[in-house]
This record gives sequence, structure tokens and C-alpha cells, in this order.
Amino acid sequence: MPDDATPAAPRVSHAALIDFIASAYCAAGVPAADAGKAADFMARSDISGADGHGVFRLPQYIRRIQTGGINVRPNIVVDRTAPGTALVDGDNGLGALVVARAVETAIDIAGTQGVSWVGTRHGNHAGAAAVYAAMPVPHDMIGVYYAVGNANHLPPWGGIDMLLSTNPLAIAVPALEEPPLVLDMATTVAAYGKVKVAAQQGKTMPEGWMIDREGLPLTDPNRSDDGFLLPIGGYKGAAMSLMFGLLAGTLNGAANGEDVVDFNKDDTTPTNTGQAICVVDIKRFAEPVAFKRQVDNVIRQLHGSALLPGFDRIRLPGEDRAARIAERTANGIPIPSSLKGALDKMAGELGIAKLLG
Amino acid sequence: MPDDATPAAPRVSHAALIDFIASAYCAAGVPAADAGKAADFMARSDISGADGHGVFRLPQYIRRIQTGGINVRPNIVVDRTAPGTALVDGDNGLGALVVARAVETAIDIAGTQGVSWVGTRHGNHAGAAAVYAAMPVPHDMIGVYYAVGNANHLPPWGGIDMLLSTNPLAIAVPALEEPPLVLDMATTVAAYGKVKVAAQQGKTMPEGWMIDREGLPLTDPNRSDDGFLLPIGGYKGAAMSLMFGLLAGTLNGAANGEDVVDFNKDDTTPTNTGQAICVVDIKRFAEPVAFKRQVDNVIRQLHGSALLPGFDRIRLPGEDRAARIAERTANGIPIPSSLKGALDKMAGELGIAKLLG
Repeated sequence: MPDDATPAAPRVSHAALIDFIASAYCAAGVPAADAGKAADFMARSDISGADGHGVFRLPQYIRRIQTGGINVRPNIVVDRTAPGTALVDGDNGLGALVVARAVETAIDIAGTQGVSWVGTRHGNHAGAAAVYAAMPVPHDMIGVYYAVGNANHLPPWGGIDMLLSTNPLAIAVPALEEPPLVLDMATTVAAYGKVKVAAQQGKTMPEGWMIDREGLPLTDPNRSDDGFLLPIGGYKGAAMSLMFGLLAGTLNGAANGEDVVDFNKDDTTPTNTGQAICVVDIKRFAEPVAFKRQVDNVIRQLHGSALLPGFDRIRLPGEDRAARIAERTANGIPIPSSLKGALDKMAGELGIAKLLG
Repeated sequence: MPDDATPAAPRVSHAALIDFIASAYCAAGVPAADAGKAADFMARSDISGADGHGVFRLPQYIRRIQTGGINVRPNIVVDRTAPGTALVDGDNGLGALVVARAVETAIDIAGTQGVSWVGTRHGNHAGAAAVYAAMPVPHDMIGVYYAVGNANHLPPWGGIDMLLSTNPLAIAVPALEEPPLVLDMATTVAAYGKVKVAAQQGKTMPEGWMIDREGLPLTDPNRSDDGFLLPIGGYKGAAMSLMFGLLAGTLNGAANGEDVVDFNKDDTTPTNTGQAICVVDIKRFAEPVAFKRQVDNVIRQLHGSALLPGFDRIRLPGEDRAARIAERTANGIPIPSSLKGALDKMAGELGIAKLLG
């Protein structure tokens, strides 16, 4: 995951980034239309500042495609199992294609049914959860998204065997004049990518991110294999990870628990990744403009709070995301040199033009 | 909230507790059928060990009824707003009646639509969230429940103005041979009731429950008005509280933010409490027995984890609840002496027979 604190990194336009990702997918055998769509969705992580979920993942995805770990010509099947539900079988295709199809289906269904629930199986890592939770927002709908992570770094509470992932929850709610509120959180204190960044940068981790098998704080990121991530709120976070894993994985016949494949260590075994999206159509509960105005009101109440010492403002979920989208749309997406190197190497191997010319 | 650690407290049978609660409601003017149903739902908190949400609340509810703060003859209206959705207006009736009606509606809808989303407004405090999330479980359905708390004890992250409540999330998933998995968590580290118990018992609170307006740990529960609860996972818990409040409150036209009424300090102002339930019918995604067997498998994987020092077993969400239900069904529900005193006083004022004869 690139470090956010690289303001001097060269910038690339959103459109150029999409073109580059699509070219890489095409060169790896993904049909053009799918390559374009998957590139669009990957770049949505980058444009919104979820840097660990965007083009940073591309070399890994390409490697997985090349070793047969991802199917470039999947037959993605949407099974409408009830008026309000669907189960999407991704046929081991690119995660973004599978989840985008699920959310598109969920938005369609919610338009007539008021609510929908769509699950996926036989998918893959799909990028930032917020990308998918936010898709219903322009339709004046609310998205609630659950996913099973692609590596188990969390034991059950009180245990040391890593049987759970950082299974995230994302919820997106539109506002009127304010940016939409978008929660996107792992159920662990830190995402595992942050540990890897700390190791790369030679930094010490704060206490509270990880513990070792004796239960003692683990702050040396190079020793991360000696311990595991801590859930937020102790047993509560571990319980959320379990429940979200049941909703996004087990319910759909997707991996959850010991059958989760560590996609950082294994490029070939199909991950059978599962996700779930619930979409709620606001107009079935409230007049949408009035609702969004009231969301603005709540946002402004919270912004108006007096501050704790050490804070300069109240930051609500989705605000930084909205600010990043605006700034990066205007100025381009920063590509740190370490990432640039990896992408150049990949481009050379694929025989495509480098990013940034 | 009674202290769990009172094993010697006199016990009362589940049926006798329901009768007592129903008698109290009847004496306060609630029609008999409603009194019986509301009593049943209140006692579900007691039988399952959610002692702070059961009969412990009855004197407060009765006081609220007597001051006109709760409508004993509500016209609860279920508006089926779309094939998959409904909005329940509780007409300021007892919370249990309003939410039970919402969940019953949601179960009915999910049976034909595969999924449902039902919101409430103009309701009241309804007891433990797990009671409602668990209602779909015997139907081989999953419940996901959100509620707005009835007092704001949480500021936005970085602020000191208490504009958010402990807004809980509850999720219930059936298993086959194992007890159902039932998550029921406040978005704060400690529920406010725990602070009140610590004050009653003259105990110090652990660091991490509350901070004062300078951001320093607050461990004296008698000084709780000088500070506020801490959210789980820092900004993540505060963000969850906000998002759950939007889903359960704002979307339904119910209170959320500065319009939340502190029902501990105000017996008369209608609280306009909101809740939301999403019900998913398992058979639309998997064969229910096979699904529940796989949930058993996941549970057993987690139970099989080696333990951290200091732990004697892995406790999963809902296990203690199931154990309490079994134990209290067999042996009765403990009524600590302080609670007994409050209930006797109330019974005398209402002219009904005391609990425990």
C-alpha cells in the first residue's frame, strides 16, 4: 500500500490510469469490455484515496491471472432467487466484475421491491468496500455492503489461530448539499496492509494493532508472522468479523473460516470470495430530498460540536473520501515511486506502454 | 442494571415474571392483549440475561405511562410502502409492541420476497436488540437490527458535544446443532447502564470506558456527567453509531442527533424512537439445513482454536445468551434485592400482587 504522505509523487489522470489498467488486463487475456469495466472499478479506489485497494493491487491480480488463479472469461450467472434477492456466481472472474454485477442487480431490484439483498460466490478481491456501497447513492438509495477478506489475520476472541479475516462493513447514505456519508471499515484496528507499509518503511507499529501469541503487544512489523491483528472493541470486533463473514461468505456458499485462501501467499487456488450487498430505496421511507436535507442537518449538528483538545475539526465518514475525489479529479492521482517501479516492470512484461508515458 | 454476580438472588419463573409485568401494564391502563404481548417481550430480555433491558426497566416505563409519555392505546399503523418494505408508525406506543409488529411484518414479507426492510418511528425503548434480531431465526431467516438509543452519551469523534447515542447493531444467524449466533453490541465500549451500576456499587471504571472533556480517562462513575462514553475502535465506533442512527432513525422520520430525548431524565416528551430490521430468508441462498450445518462447522473451527494465555475457552456471540436461556428456564430468573425493592414499591402503588408473592 503506498504511503499517503507522498505529496510530491508524480500524478496521473483518472482517465490515463483507467486506460493503463485496461491495457494490462487486455494484455493478460481479459476481453476488452470486461477489461474496461474492471479498470473503471479499480480506479475508483485510487481516485477516492483507498490506495491500498486500487492499482497497487494490479501486479498481484495480473500474476493471479497468469497463473490461472483468476478466470479471464467467466460465465457470471445472476440467479434471481426471489423477487427481492439474487445470488451471483462469479465463475472465479475478476472480483470487480462480479461485485459490480451484484450491486447493479441489487439497485435494479430495489427500484421495484424497495429493498434487495444480493450475494456473491466464486468471486475475488474486488477493491475498496466503499466503492460498492456507494453505487446506490446516486439513485437515492442506501447501500450496506459486507465482504469476506482474502487472508485470515484474526483469531476468534481469546484464541490464537487465525480463522477470521478483517471482514469489512461499508454503508453509504446520500446527503443533499454535504458529501454522502460513507463508512468503510475493517473489523480490525488496523488493516493488514498498514502492517506491510510499516515494515517497508522501517517504522514501529503503535500498540493496539497487533499482539503476539502470548497476548503481548507486537510493535515490530517485521515480526508480524509472530502474531495477529486485534479486532476493534475486543470481542465485539471479532464477533462482527464472524457475523459479516456468515452474511457475505457462508450464506452464499463462499469461503469463510478455515477455507479462506490467503491470496497474498497463494496465486493459484481459487479464492471463492463472497460479498453481500443490501440496497434500500429511500423513497419507500421518506421523500428523498427531505431525507437528504435531514442528513445534512445531522452532519451540521455533528460538525458544530465543540472540540476535544488535540482535534482541529470533526471528520465524518466519507468526508475525506469526497475531498480526495475532488482533489484527485482536479490534479490527478499520485503514483509513488515504489508503485511506479512495480507498474513499469509489469508493463514491460506485458508489452504495454508504461503509465505516465 | 442488576449485577450479574448475584447468584444467591431469589428466582422467579419466566411465566410468573410475564404475569407480573402484564399485571403492571394492565394496572397502568394498557389493554390486556397488549399488556400480555409487551410483557412477553420484556421478559425475553430477562430470560436471556440482558438484565438491564428487562423488568429492570419496568418502573421507568410505568412512570412514563403515568405521566403521559407513552400512549397506552396506540393506533400502530403498518404502511406497506413497497413489496419488500414497510414503515411502522408506533403512535408513541410501548416500544416492544411497535418493534415486535415491525419484525413480524418483516418475517412475513421476507417469506415471499426473500428479503425485507421494515422501519419504525414514533416508538419507544424496546429492550435488548438481540430479542428482535433473533425473532427470524426459528423461521430459518437471518435478522439484522439497528436501533437509535434513548440518550445521547457519545460525541462525534474529536468532539465533546454528546449528539450520538450508543446505537446498537444486532445480527442473528441460525445454526443446526449449535446455538444460534447472536451479536448484540452497543457502538460504545461500555453501555451507559454499566456506568450507573459502577456508581451504585462504589466501583471504579476501567480506563477506556469514558473520557472527560479534556480527553483524559474518567474512571470515577460519580463524575460521569463530566464526560462521555468512548466508541469502540475510536472513530470507527462513532461512525457506526452515526450510520446506524441514520438507518434506524433519520430514514424513518424518527429521532437521531440532537432531537434524541434522554428518557432517563425526561418522562414526558415523546421519544420518537426508531428502529430498523432487515430479514433475509436463507432458503433463497442455500438449502437451510446445509447452511446451518456449515454454520456449525465454522463455530467448531473457532472453538477449536488454541487459546491465548488467560482465556479458558472461545466464547462466540450468542453462546452466553443461549446458556442463560437454558439455565433460567430451568431455574428461574434471579431478582436482586435492589430490583425487588423497586418492583415491590411499584406493585404497591399500582395495587397489584408483588412479584415472588
